[in-house]
Parts: sequence; structure tokens; C-alpha cells
Amino acid sequence: MDIKNYSIDELKLLCKNIRTRILEVVSKNGGHLSSNIGAVELIVAMHYVFDVSKDPFIFDVSHQCYAHKLLTDRWESFATLRQFGGISGFSKPKESSADYFIAGHSSTSISLAVGAAKAINLKGEDRLPVALIGDGSMSAGMAYEALNELGDRKYPCVIILNDNEMSISKPIGALSKYLSHIMAGEAYQKFKSGVEKILSYMPDSANYMARRMEEGIRLITPGIFFEELGLEYIGPVNGHDLSDLIATFKTAKTMKKPVIIHAQTLKGKGYEKAEGHFASWHGVSPFDLESGEVIKKSSTKKSPTAIFSEHLLKMAGEHKDIVGVTAAMPTGTGMDALIEAYPERFWDVAIAEQHAVTSMAAMAKEGFKPFVVIYSTFLQRAYDQIIHDACILNLNMTFAMDRAGIVGEDGETHQGVFDISYLNLIPNIVLFAPRSENSLKLAMQFAYDYKGVSAFRYPRGAFLLDEAEFGAKNFTLGRGEILSSGSSDVALIGYGNGVGKANEVGKILPFSTTLVDLVFIKPLDEALLLDLAKKHKRWYIISDSVKKGGVGEILAGFLQSHKIFDVKIVSFEYDDKFITHGSANLVEQSLGILAEQIADKITNDNLY
Amino acid sequence: MDIKNYSIDELKLLCKNIRTRILEVVSKNGGHLSSNIGAVELIVAMHYVFDVSKDPFIFDVSHQCYAHKLLTDRWESFATLRQFGGISGFSKPKESSADYFIAGHSSTSISLAVGAAKAINLKGEDRLPVALIGDGSMSAGMAYEALNELGDRKYPCVIILNDNEMSISKPIGALSKYLSHIMAGEAYQKFKSGVEKILSYMPDSANYMARRMEEGIRLITPGIFFEELGLEYIGPVNGHDLSDLIATFKTAKTMKKPVIIHAQTLKGKGYEKAEGHFASWHGVSPFDLESGEVIKKSSTKKSPTAIFSEHLLKMAGEHKDIVGVTAAMPTGTGMDALIEAYPERFWDVAIAEQHAVTSMAAMAKEGFKPFVVIYSTFLQRAYDQIIHDACILNLNMTFAMDRAGIVGEDGETHQGVFDISYLNLIPNIVLFAPRSENSLKLAMQFAYDYKGVSAFRYPRGAFLLDEAEFGAKNFTLGRGEILSSGSSDVALIGYGNGVGKANEVGKILPFSTTLVDLVFIKPLDEALLLDLAKKHKRWYIISDSVKKGGVGEILAGFLQSHKIFDVKIVSFEYDDKFITHGSANLVEQSLGILAEQIADKITNDNLY
Repeated sequence: MDIKNYSIDELKLLCKNIRTRILEVVSKNGGHLSSNIGAVELIVAMHYVFDVSKDPFIFDVSHQCYAHKLLTDRWESFATLRQFGGISGFSKPKESSADYFIAGHSSTSISLAVGAAKAINLKGEDRLPVALIGDGSMSAGMAYEALNELGDRKYPCVIILNDNEMSISKPIGALSKYLSHIMAGEAYQKFKSGVEKILSYMPDSANYMARRMEEGIRLITPGIFFEELGLEYIGPVNGHDLSDLIATFKTAKTMKKPVIIHAQTLKGKGYEKAEGHFASWHGVSPFDLESGEVIKKSSTKKSPTAIFSEHLLKMAGEHKDIVGVTAAMPTGTGMDALIEAYPERFWDVAIAEQHAVTSMAAMAKEGFKPFVVIYSTFLQRAYDQIIHDACILNLNMTFAMDRAGIVGEDGETHQGVFDISYLNLIPNIVLFAPRSENSLKLAMQFAYDYKGVSAFRYPRGAFLLDEAEFGAKNFTLGRGEILSSGSSDVALIGYGNGVGKANEVGKILPFSTTLVDLVFIKPLDEALLLDLAKKHKRWYIISDSVKKGGVGEILAGFLQSHKIFDVKIVSFEYDDKFITHGSANLVEQSLGILAEQIADKITNDNLY
Repeated sequence: MDIKNYSIDELKLLCKNIRTRILEVVSKNGGHLSSNIGAVELIVAMHYVFDVSKDPFIFDVSHQCYAHKLLTDRWESFATLRQFGGISGFSKPKESSADYFIAGHSSTSISLAVGAAKAINLKGEDRLPVALIGDGSMSAGMAYEALNELGDRKYPCVIILNDNEMSISKPIGALSKYLSHIMAGEAYQKFKSGVEKILSYMPDSANYMARRMEEGIRLITPGIFFEELGLEYIGPVNGHDLSDLIATFKTAKTMKKPVIIHAQTLKGKGYEKAEGHFASWHGVSPFDLESGEVIKKSSTKKSPTAIFSEHLLKMAGEHKDIVGVTAAMPTGTGMDALIEAYPERFWDVAIAEQHAVTSMAAMAKEGFKPFVVIYSTFLQRAYDQIIHDACILNLNMTFAMDRAGIVGEDGETHQGVFDISYLNLIPNIVLFAPRSENSLKLAMQFAYDYKGVSAFRYPRGAFLLDEAEFGAKNFTLGRGEILSSGSSDVALIGYGNGVGKANEVGKILPFSTTLVDLVFIKPLDEALLLDLAKKHKRWYIISDSVKKGGVGEILAGFLQSHKIFDVKIVSFEYDDKFITHGSANLVEQSLGILAEQIADKITNDNLY
């Protein structure tokens, strides 16, 4: 859509239409709502001032890029947002050349802008990287690492800091306080009116330079934090005022320096029910536009997150040594309830997974029992800290990994499929997984009782296994469980939520099988497995994890190391590819790993 | 050593003796020199003012903690520094209760201080975390994540910023410029003389508060960067002036807030040849104290690092699209030569592995070919960036992993033994390893030619394989090589430097074996392996990597997936334990994996 000749009024109408379209689709499909409707004017102004056909438009986390998608030939196809085979909820180069990079994890945008700027400089091209980053993303160290190089080497680029004063949930951290101090401060108020006066009668490009010449003002510049880092700072500006934004962006465009534009927006702007609300309207399920009510799914099963949250609250009441942390996902992990009940023992440290892990390692050293609650996919961001700060000393702490397995609509950046493989190789760590609701509670109890580093995973959706069929058992270090014994030589070996699926598979198969819950993937239940191997010569592995380094390979290594050569393993874990977005069911179907598909493959297995 | 009643003169003498002892031992054993002799007064003052028996003393990276070791019952045993079974070169709780935490990777100290402070607060104890962190470590995002929480929640702790204005090599980044600006600035000079005047006639604890009351001064405080983050700032102080340091530390001790003390030191202080020199005196081999000359080892083999550096320089001359990055290890990786020759194409981005990877991902997107050159152990710090920013898009970039395998004296925090396992599970990435000097050059050529994400590893010590025996071959994607065929059913399968050791093993064995170089661990040479499996029923794996998720398990999984059940694998990779420090030879001997030990085990293998 070419909007460069639009009038301000036409742009305003466009913003309105974009909001309507976003609300229309997100209320049906679910998705990120408040961040997207809060950033409409910012993105429209970006497209008006900069040139998306050549300038890298870099969206941090990219959960605010819907307006950009609508402006770049995806107005109609946007109806398929987050659906299998449809438009991704994030920026995705395979979907459109207008999407410069993929992003689903936070705080990569400034690094990408630096890299793009270096390349542009080398190629001598007339292009300008433009990054849009929320104040929440600014809390991660990676953003600071990039600013540190940028402020030193001063590559031209524009960084639009979208400050909605609330990150995903509440604002956390000193930088956040600093930003709101700027917004509220007297110095700013005076300063802003002064600047506005100047702006009113000078040509755009001269405005900022004029301001900079008044060296006296420099010391009370609200952006002194950024200026001390060597960056030019403009702001704050009203992020919903198109004229202001356009003027400011035009100024920044001419500066040939790294510029931070600090824009204030209201998250949820334009949909009254969402305006200014914190976490509840960030990522939403389908909802009724009129009432704002979530359209309930028929499932009555409790989410593992809810079970975790309620049970940890109970445990925290009983055990004063339990402490815990979330990295900017208080509602997503259910840690909000803990933080509210025990603000001295549970913390949201903002998007700062590295710091979350290592600060809790120190608490473990001090005799507390930290629960580090981070999604499987985001725990990748603290990998070295798990190895270096938690595991070398084998500290008494546990990692609760929510969103293990296929997460559905968020897609390839968010799948929690690597954790078994990347944790299993670390010495000292103990790995286990619950299979059902009460099993999760018992897993948490074991995590508390065990005196060393441990990690357990649980899925986003409901547990598949019905406890009426197989009741939960206490966890004992390195002990698995045979749930049912069959007459054939086939063992269906499940781990975590894979146990429920293995049980489903067993029911479909035309012969009787033995159902095994590994319970622990590290250490393995060697006795159980050695015994199992005596009569069961076909092991089918069902786990929501990747094959590479996953359960199947771990068991293959186990058999080799025990010199057992007559057992055949087939794993139904995920192949070595990134897994796309869509409803978990459709995604699994496309991978051929629905229960009936697995049963079919086992039935037709030409192993013999 | 109780030094609390020492006079200043006695403390000065103590500092002199500590320096002498450090020089005496490091010149014999090698170790970190300039950082350690530069921090002597800081550490002596820490021990004088704070109480090591209760206050957590947290050393960032801890390559400056030798004085602390000497002050805590390790004066004599310090003679065994970095030797197998001897004193570790880093802070290590197993070695002494005075060592609060382990540290070998950078920028964890402030997070640890925050965690310790939270614990102390909860327990209501009278203890104060004291962290010592270098300006180099301040460049990593993790330090900033911790400051961001600390400035918000304001837990009492003391952070001593040891600013020697040179990090490990040259100062990089905006924060570094900011710090040196403080040192040089007029505002500081005036300010400092003012403060000194006040300090001279006021009781210690009142000094700082008095200063803070003059709100007018606040705006020109040199520490405004930190103060905007909500931290109290004192400085700069002379880090070699014991009286100044003691007075400042005493002030900070009473403040009940997070305080940054900015101390200026001279790296290498007290050993003239090292004073003020950048990288060359950071980590040293044994040297002659008189002349400063390194005591040459008899080996005449070139280090893989040197080969890499020279060859990349040649390639960079031929191919204008090659760019590259190091994260604060320009001399360690040999990237210094590249940065000097092509400052527009090669960068040191400071200790900022996350940013290093992602900024290079953007350059790959722009058509350049980045070489990301990071030690195996430090690449763990950019794990999510490898997955999320490089591999999902399968960008055309390569990771050159120096220091793969056992690194020797630096020990458990630095062993480069996990990379095969943690990278293999990531979709799209191609993994390979050279076996000899020319093979490294050909690996680099392949990395350049291959159009996607790849990673290759090479050891710290020299390659074991003699090229006179087996010449290097060009790399072809997914193609291994049979180096020699034997008459027995035994295959010795090596990867990387493991090929040279496998060859040594083969020579010791009393029967003839087949020697295989996997060359690629991902993708595997399936045809070669399937063919090998026909006649070779015993596969012995030799690779300097961990067993978990390592070469042996990967091959076990391969055999399973190809339904081959008559091949037996025994892996001589590393067991599931962190590996201690000491000369690589002694460490390997303790693990039972010297060539003769492996040969012995194979000879006695009771597999049949």
C-alpha cells in the first residue's frame, strides 16, 4: 500500500481501518492485541516517512507488527492470522519480503539494526535501519549490548522506543522507572513546551540540531541515560499523534547518527476495554468484540499453568524456603499469584532470563529453594547460566519449564521442543516430567525435596492422560513406572505429556502393548529399562520433543552402553525441522504424529 | 589471615608481598597476571573493611582473585596454582569456604549480589554482598539486567567497578568511553578536589551523605549513568591508594543501598613490563621474571588459532564479502590481525556474545558472510541467538569455535566439551571439524562456500594428526573419509582432533583397524556409515566432547534409525561430569582416555 501521498486525515482514517481490521481478526483467531493496536500510528508513520522497500523495518519481538502486515499486501490474507498454513503472528521473511527478519523472542532488534547498518555502510547504500522496540524489550541485556556498540561506533539508524509504560505486565526495573520519570518530570514538561515552541516555526530538519546547540539544556535532557551511551535522543513524543511522529521521524532520518525516538503510546489504544490494561489483553484467545468476553472452549480441563500456580502457592505457604522468579511472564506462568501473595519471595525481573537464573543461584547458595519458572523456549536464553552458575555447583534449585512441546499458534520461534536435548548434556542436572494434573503437583513436591539442580517440563495445553485411568504416583529419583503390561513384545514409552498420547495409541493398536512412563529422562531408570528389554523388543517413543538428542536417542545410547542389541527403537518425536504455527492438532497432523497416525505407523511397521 | 588490625604501612607491605607471591607463582605456572596484580589493593581493602567470614565476596570472572586466595589460607598451596589437583585459577567454593561462588565466565557478579542480597534480606542477617567487577565485564548484557533490578529494588550491596580502562584488550563500547570520559573530564577534576577537601575533615560515614545533600551537584555527578539507573555512585577513586579505598569502602558499608564504587587501577601494576599493556599480559604462559620472556615449550607445532587467523586474513583478502566478529577475545581468537587489517569488516564487540551473533545474522541477511569466532565454552552464552536469529532463517554464516575439547589449566568453567551436543539438536545447522593444520584451512574454505548456517570446532592445543601421514582433503557436505582400512572388524571413528588420537590408538593396538574421520557430525555420511557397518561390527568413538548427546549417541541413534542391530559402539568421549583443571595430559590421564589407555581398554574389551 503506497501511503506516501496520503494527507494526515487520510492517514488517520487508515489507522482507524487498521484497528478495525486487527480487532476483527484477533477477536476471531486470537493473537496479540493490545501491543498491536497500540502501535498503529507508529507503524503508519514509519511507512510514511521511511521506505519499506529498501529500509530494514525491524520489529522487536514483532508481536506489534500486525499493522505492518496489513500495509504490505496482507490485508485479505490477514484473516488467516496464526492459523495453520496462514499468516504468522510474527514478522517472517518467508511470508513477505517486507518482513526483514524473524522475531518472536525479545530484544534482538537493536543488534539487527547494528548489523544491517554495518552492511549498509560497507555497501555504501542509501538505506536506514528502523527498529521498533517496546520498553519491555529494553530490559534484556542483549538490547544493552547492542546499544553499547552502537553508541561507540555510531552507525546511522533509528530506534523507536515504544514506551507504553507497562511492558507485557507491570513495568519492572530501573530503566522503566527512569522512562516514567522522564514522562512525569517537571524538567521534561518545561523542556517539551520549549521544544514545541521551536518546532512550530522551524523547518523539520533544523529542529533537533537547534536544540542540541543549546549546550546548557543538555544536562537536563531527559534522555541523558541514552546520551551518556553516545546516542542521540529525541523525546518524549506522543505515539498516537501522527503529525508529531512524522515530523520527528523526518528529523531522525536526516541525522546520519544513531537516534533513539522515545514515543509514548497507550497499549490497547482504540479498543476501550483493553486500553491501559496490563497483561490480560496482551495475548488473547478469541473473544466477543462487543462484550470483551473470552469465547470459552468446551474443554473443562485445567491448564497445567493454573495447576502449577495454585500448587506452588500452597507449597510456598508450607515451606518458607521456597522462592521464585519469572522473567516478564507473570500471568503466562501463573507466578502473578505468588508475587502478589509473597512479594518478598517471588519476583518478576523483567525480560532478563540470564539474570533470573543467576540471581536465583545465589539464593540457592544461601539456603533457599528457588523455582525458576520460564517457558521452555525462553530458557534457551539462559543456557550458559544454567551450566555455569547452577550446574557446576549443583545448587539446590529447580527449573519449571512451562510451554513444553508444540505451543500452537505462536509457531516456530516459540516451540518448546529442545529442552530435553539441551539440558540432558549438562552434568548434575536431574530431568523429569509429570504426565497428568496431580502428577504435576507430585513433580513439584519432588523438585522441592530433591537437593540439587533439577528441571521439569509441562505442556501448554491440558494433560492428555486421564487420572481416573492411571492415578498419579510419587516421584522417586530415577524411577520410571510401568503403567500396564501387554502380551506383545511392544512397549509404548512415553515421557511427560507423551504418556497420555502413548496411552491413546495403545488403545487404537490391534494388539496389547506395555505402557511405560519414563518419569525421569535423567537419570534413567536403568533397572526398569533393562528388565523391559528382556521381553520387549520393540520400543516406540512418544514425547513432545525433538528426535536429535531426544528421548529416542538417549535410549539408543543407553542400550548401546549396556550392550543390548536386540531391541529396536522407533521414535515419534519431532524431525529435525523448525515447526510452523497453527493449532496444535493440525500441526501434529501435518507431522504425522496424531495418536491414530502413530498407531497406523506402528501397525504397518515393517521392522520384521 | 586477619588483617583488620594492620596499619596502613603493614597493609602496604602486605600488598607488596602478595604481588611478589603472585609473580613468583604465575611466572612458573602461567595464569592471569595483569588483572591479578592490578587488583591487589582493591582486594586487600575489601578484606580490611568487609568480613569475608560472613559477607559474600563475589569476584566477576574471578580472574583477579589471586590476592583473595592468598589472604584466605592458600599462601603455600598457591604454588600449585592451575596444576592438576592444585589450586584453581578461579574462585571455587569446593576449594575454600571463602570463595562464595564459582566464576570463569564474565558478568555474573551483580546478579549473584542481587540474589545474595535478597536472601540476606529475607533472613534478616547483617551481611553485605561485595562484588568486584572489571569494566570489561560491564559490557555484557547480563550485568545490565542485574543493575536494572538492583536500581529498582535497591538491595544493599557494594559493587566495586575495577576500571583499568582496557578490559582484556582495548576498551570497546559506549560505556567504556563514558567511563574514560569520567576520568578525564573537567567536571570530575573539580568535583574530585571538592570531595577530597570535604573528606579530609569529616568522619567517614558522613562524607558521602554530605555530598549527596548538595542537590545542585547532582546534575554534574560523573556517575549520572548509574544514578539514572537508581544506584548510588562514588568515584572515581584511585584503586591503588589503600587509604582512599578503605575510607570509601567504609562509607559504602554504612549506606544500606546499592552503591557503585568506581575505582581506577592500572592493569599489571607492580610489574613494570606488564603495566598498562593490553592483552599480552592478561593470561600468560610461564615466563622469565627478569626478562619477561615467555619460556617456550619444545613443541614447534603451530596453534590452530594461529592457522585460523592467518588463513582468514588470506581469505578476507580474496573475498570481500567475508566479515567477522569476536566477543572480547581478539588475541585469543587471532581476530586481532583481521581487525587491524580490515577495521570496517571485523569487529570486537566486547563481552557481548548475544549481540555478536545477532548483529552478524543481520549482516548475513544483507549478503555478507560472517565468521563468528567465539570459544566453544563462551558460545553457550549466545545459544538462543544461534537458534532464533541464525538457524530459523538458515542464514549464510559460520561459527568458528576455538578451544574445543579440554582446555587444560582454566578448568571446569572453560572446557569446550558441550558444543557438539547443544548444536546438533538445532535444525538447519551443519557441523564439521578439521583434523589437522591444512584440514583447518580447508574447513574454513568449506564454511565460506557453504550457503547456510554452519559451525566448526578446533582445539586449543596443536592438532594431533600428522599431515605427512594423512594429507588434508577438501570438505564436501556430509562426506566422511576412510583414512585406512584394517583387517579386523574394528573401526576407530574419530571426529576433529579425535582423528589424530584415534590414529595413535590404532598404532598401539595389536591388530589392524579401520580408521574413519567422520568429518561431518551433521549431516552424517550415511552411505559411508552404512557401508562401514557391513563389515565393521565394533565402533570405537574418539572425540573431545561429552558422551551425552555426543558422537557416540548420535551414531547409536543413526544405527537405530537405520535398523542396524549388529554393530556395537563404545565411546571414549567424556563422562557426565564437569572436568577439572590441570595440564590436558594429566586431566586426560585421570579420565582414562590417553591413547594408550584407550588402546588398553579396547584390547581388553569383553564385548564378545
